[in-house]
Amino acid sequence: MLKLYYTAGTCALASHITLEEVGADYSTVRISFDANQQNSPEYLAINPKGRIPSLVTDRGILTETPAMLAYIAQCYPQAKLAPFDDAFAFAEVQSFNSFICSSLHVAHAHRMRGHRWAYEESSFRDMQRKVPESVGSHYRLIEEHMFRGPWVMGDSYTICDPYLFTLAQWMEGDGLDPSDFPKVKDHRQRMSERATVQRAIAEETR
Amino acid sequence: MLKLYYTAGTCALASHITLEEVGADYSTVRISFDANQQNSPEYLAINPKGRIPSLVTDRGILTETPAMLAYIAQCYPQAKLAPFDDAFAFAEVQSFNSFICSSLHVAHAHRMRGHRWAYEESSFRDMQRKVPESVGSHYRLIEEHMFRGPWVMGDSYTICDPYLFTLAQWMEGDGLDPSDFPKVKDHRQRMSERATVQRAIAEETR
Repeated sequence: MLKLYYTAGTCALASHITLEEVGADYSTVRISFDANQQNSPEYLAINPKGRIPSLVTDRGILTETPAMLAYIAQCYPQAKLAPFDDAFAFAEVQSFNSFICSSLHVAHAHRMRGHRWAYEESSFRDMQRKVPESVGSHYRLIEEHMFRGPWVMGDSYTICDPYLFTLAQWMEGDGLDPSDFPKVKDHRQRMSERATVQRAIAEETR
Repeated sequence: MLKLYYTAGTCALASHITLEEVGADYSTVRISFDANQQNSPEYLAINPKGRIPSLVTDRGILTETPAMLAYIAQCYPQAKLAPFDDAFAFAEVQSFNSFICSSLHVAHAHRMRGHRWAYEESSFRDMQRKVPESVGSHYRLIEEHMFRGPWVMGDSYTICDPYLFTLAQWMEGDGLDPSDFPKVKDHRQRMSERATVQRAIAEETR
């Protein structure tokens, strides 16, 4: 059985939704950022990076959302969440998720985690000021160049969809107006109506 | 035939080496950062993100190094550069490469690309000061928790190896002493002796 370590309001939600989508037999463990549990000896033994999420499998522990999403999809092929038999189509899925992880999420993280990359409070405030512009430029690329509709990759719902949805939860907090990105806004709305999404969020916020 | 858009001294080298490893039929196009070619209309038509690398295939264009590396490996299965038939082992490869992309490379980028995430010169200088610590903490994780030896994933050479090697070129520039990370240093030395690596570097620096 799979076990997901998550914190509410983090990118762990993407994996959580995906576990629901495939109908996996899984359990969850909540990690409190407020109590700094992600840096506890117990959690660092699971994930030495001190980051959320982690996925415990019967073969070992996995971290990094793009890897976890593809893993879940590959373990449950009947759910058809990634085109593993088509190298190019799979690479397009991976490219989108890598962009989310290394560009969009990273830009967002400068709002609250500036200490990862600088020392001074003045730098943190400067980073916070730039978040609407930097995060917004990435959503602009998604809106104008990447999003195909009705799902990220077109007609097929894939592991790109819960990942985009998860980060799109943070748009208002990042100082963006979702109405400036109508495709992303509409996608977010349709995602929020899925029973799988509602179950994952309900568990994380119960 | 595949066509790789690259700039010398960038993470494009990882894909370049991998194309050499699999014996691909490919060509290269050099993009000059000095001439800001990555933001030219011609290049933005290929990659609207204005980033390097891009890989032109007969199906379309791919970007994002983790996706490109897995794509090349999947197109040339006889080279056995990624364990596609083992979901967990493949996820471990993906997890490592996602970490390189979203944590190690991002930390490094704060040395010269602070303008992506802040406005003020004082912030850029502060970010630069933190690079040895932030990049170093990621190499510490690789050294102590991720690197198995003799290759990143253990006995099998995979798409993790050219990616780690490529970023490890930048250690001294990031203010690190490779001797503090003996596994990474030894790996870099052994990688630099491979004919595939030497051919890719020779072409990029000719």
